[in-house]
Amino acid sequence: MPRYKLVVEYDGTAFAGWQRQAADRSVQQALEEAIARFVGGPVRVHCAGRTDAGVHATHQVVHLDLDKPWRTDTVRDAANAHLRPEPVAVISAAEVGPDFDARHSAIKRHYRYRILNRRSPPALTRGFVWHVPWALDAGLMHEAAQLMLGRHDFSAFRAAECQANSPVRTLDRLDVRREGEEIVAITAARSFLHHQVRGMVGTLMLAGGGRLTPQGVRDVLDSRDRTRCGPLAPSGGLTLIGVDYPAEFG
Amino acid sequence: MPRYKLVVEYDGTAFAGWQRQAADRSVQQALEEAIARFVGGPVRVHCAGRTDAGVHATHQVVHLDLDKPWRTDTVRDAANAHLRPEPVAVISAAEVGPDFDARHSAIKRHYRYRILNRRSPPALTRGFVWHVPWALDAGLMHEAAQLMLGRHDFSAFRAAECQANSPVRTLDRLDVRREGEEIVAITAARSFLHHQVRGMVGTLMLAGGGRLTPQGVRDVLDSRDRTRCGPLAPSGGLTLIGVDYPAEFG
Repeated sequence: MPRYKLVVEYDGTAFAGWQRQAADRSVQQALEEAIARFVGGPVRVHCAGRTDAGVHATHQVVHLDLDKPWRTDTVRDAANAHLRPEPVAVISAAEVGPDFDARHSAIKRHYRYRILNRRSPPALTRGFVWHVPWALDAGLMHEAAQLMLGRHDFSAFRAAECQANSPVRTLDRLDVRREGEEIVAITAARSFLHHQVRGMVGTLMLAGGGRLTPQGVRDVLDSRDRTRCGPLAPSGGLTLIGVDYPAEFG
Repeated sequence: MPRYKLVVEYDGTAFAGWQRQAADRSVQQALEEAIARFVGGPVRVHCAGRTDAGVHATHQVVHLDLDKPWRTDTVRDAANAHLRPEPVAVISAAEVGPDFDARHSAIKRHYRYRILNRRSPPALTRGFVWHVPWALDAGLMHEAAQLMLGRHDFSAFRAAECQANSPVRTLDRLDVRREGEEIVAITAARSFLHHQVRGMVGTLMLAGGGRLTPQGVRDVLDSRDRTRCGPLAPSGGLTLIGVDYPAEFG
């Protein structure tokens, strides 16, 4: 039973999220069906980060077991051929040992969040940005973000349906900067709570617009009170951009 | 009859190009209908660059005359409200004198062309890149591009249906560089022939893959023979990114 690690890119707009569901189409279903067609039997893929409906990925990581060995180039190219016309692509495939688990072996996840901060709505990046039409100060947002780094109870930014055992997480990076008409946040942690990134970005938006001070953002964190969190930033602005593994897994 | 200059952004994927047509929806039609709805009567907009079906714009420029004065902020915001849900947005509106003509006053057009140069197809940038799966050398493409700068007869890169009086154009800029998995070409000229940018990019692609030398690309230009042009690069990779006017028009 050789095991494969795939790096997968997708446009989450049309999907009900990563995870298979009864009713709506998921990225997992699209990928499993494409692979099943060329290996000739059912397969199950396991991912590093179960993204919500509308969330995108440039670098999702999955693992799967196949009944017999396949050339890694064939796995990648055949999956892509059978994925057509779904907006999902396998970027790379590698054979890994049986100890590799896309979710449990991961030591860091990286996400990007894009805000379009201009008066006019997006025509070219619709579904990929949060449109905030009033002026935001990216410098203030970055300053507030630095007060959230480190190990904290992130209950204030946690979805009601979050299934994690503990609300404590260690935030390693949360950088916010302006890139032309966009404000881009890059964040990294071993793992995030459900909705944590979108809740943090929504709260930072309040700081960028002057409705919270940077210390006010920190007070929201310290409160551990979901009702004090800013608006949940829409899913389309969020993209999973990387997953790190220990060096032993290459 | 006050005259307005608008900067317009659009996703050209779903449109039959800029120009109004009998059958299919055009960007011009979407914009004219949106403005007509808030001014209460028909309007005609005139653009700087009549983009083909599938071509995008971050910075198309149009002018139009309205029966009475409107605040420029109102023109922009009302147009955007009535454009919804079309993937077209008015980025800015300004009042200009009667001498301003979006097409005839323009002194330079800027276009960008994006090639996705990796084995796997695009999932996130579909419709916005040309997918070339074999390795291209951006340095060779740039070298070849420099041999096309200046004033030449560009007949080799001209569409059969091009309506320009002369095939002679002056190419001011054609820079090609790699940006991660993409190869991006930026070009500028007072004006281009129909299909000129896409023909030049298709021919540079041959140089990037080693099928033409840089001098071979120059030989295609000098031949003025359309049958020697490389493949026409697909429309989705092309975006109009700027139009320059003399300082007198602001």
